[in-house]
Amino acid sequence: MQHAPPLTKLIEALRVLPGVGPKTAQRMAFHLLQGGRGGARTLADALTEGLASISRCKRCRMLTDADLCSICAAPSRDAALLCVVESPADVVAVEQSGSYRGRYFVLHGHLSPLDGIGPDQIGAREFEALLDAGEVREVILATNPTVEGEATAHFLGERAAERSIPASRIAHGVPIGGELEYVDGGTLAHAFAGRIRQG
Amino acid sequence: MQHAPPLTKLIEALRVLPGVGPKTAQRMAFHLLQGGRGGARTLADALTEGLASISRCKRCRMLTDADLCSICAAPSRDAALLCVVESPADVVAVEQSGSYRGRYFVLHGHLSPLDGIGPDQIGAREFEALLDAGEVREVILATNPTVEGEATAHFLGERAAERSIPASRIAHGVPIGGELEYVDGGTLAHAFAGRIRQG
Repeated sequence: MQHAPPLTKLIEALRVLPGVGPKTAQRMAFHLLQGGRGGARTLADALTEGLASISRCKRCRMLTDADLCSICAAPSRDAALLCVVESPADVVAVEQSGSYRGRYFVLHGHLSPLDGIGPDQIGAREFEALLDAGEVREVILATNPTVEGEATAHFLGERAAERSIPASRIAHGVPIGGELEYVDGGTLAHAFAGRIRQG
Repeated sequence: MQHAPPLTKLIEALRVLPGVGPKTAQRMAFHLLQGGRGGARTLADALTEGLASISRCKRCRMLTDADLCSICAAPSRDAALLCVVESPADVVAVEQSGSYRGRYFVLHGHLSPLDGIGPDQIGAREFEALLDAGEVREVILATNPTVEGEATAHFLGERAAERSIPASRIAHGVPIGGELEYVDGGTLAHAFAGRIRQG
């Protein structure tokens, strides 16, 4: 059947959410316009506010509402350690493991030439500038253990090697083919402790 | 770790969506604020527009952007047949089966006294008023085959019986304990054809 145009528009719009297909989007739209109207209003406002106030940290590219994210701004964090991750969710996962006190660099993806994602898209220039700034003494490559993640780690490890900065790759415990975001804290702590020097 | 307040607010707001827990909400928020910014803008606008323009059909309580929904407004639909369903998604499912040419009445729920959902919450008064208006010659009770759905069908069937309007319950094919919304069209067509007179 033909939905009312604003309803069709809402169903289509909900499909930008990861993992949401047409049936789930319809279910969500009906839910929002039935009982959850207060929630729908709150969601629309939170989206508008988030878009206006959240951008990338000037140093590490984490999502933040300030120039520097809370981690880069914290004096207690070790500026000599730089952990490279693919996504903001990975930063959250590593933080929850409690095994790391350095800073981060968020790639927002991984190298994937077939999809047009090269060094510029993952912030390789900003990464090199950060290494050239002189504070970083070790790079920990915590990209996902997938083919693209490994290739990205290799590429960034070489950039560190050019500057004689040791780079390591997190190792034991992260299941191959898995997503870093879903690994439990204990496994991540183990992976950080057992990291192997690269390059 | 502590997210920026607007990010926390967005993650919380996304949890109003059905089936979205804290981890999925975080994943959605990051996705919306990373690559999907155009999509986030579109979603916020679609929510605002949907809230402003979508309400319930004056006659059948289906979601619509007009006084009457497209089904109630269509002269080709048989006004003598009234199919009672729990949700707008059920209307979509029945329409997709192509087995029904009457009108609908949407309860937006089912009787559930423990949750404070009584006859008033499912629109029993509007339902009775519709029967009293004189056009309806048969009521098809297509609530879900759950305990609450059966109780709701029984209650509404009695309201029809009081007015000597025959009421039937859809039958064969819909799996017990399942959700009407997810049944395929063929099974639904079978259920409509094999309906059994109630009361």
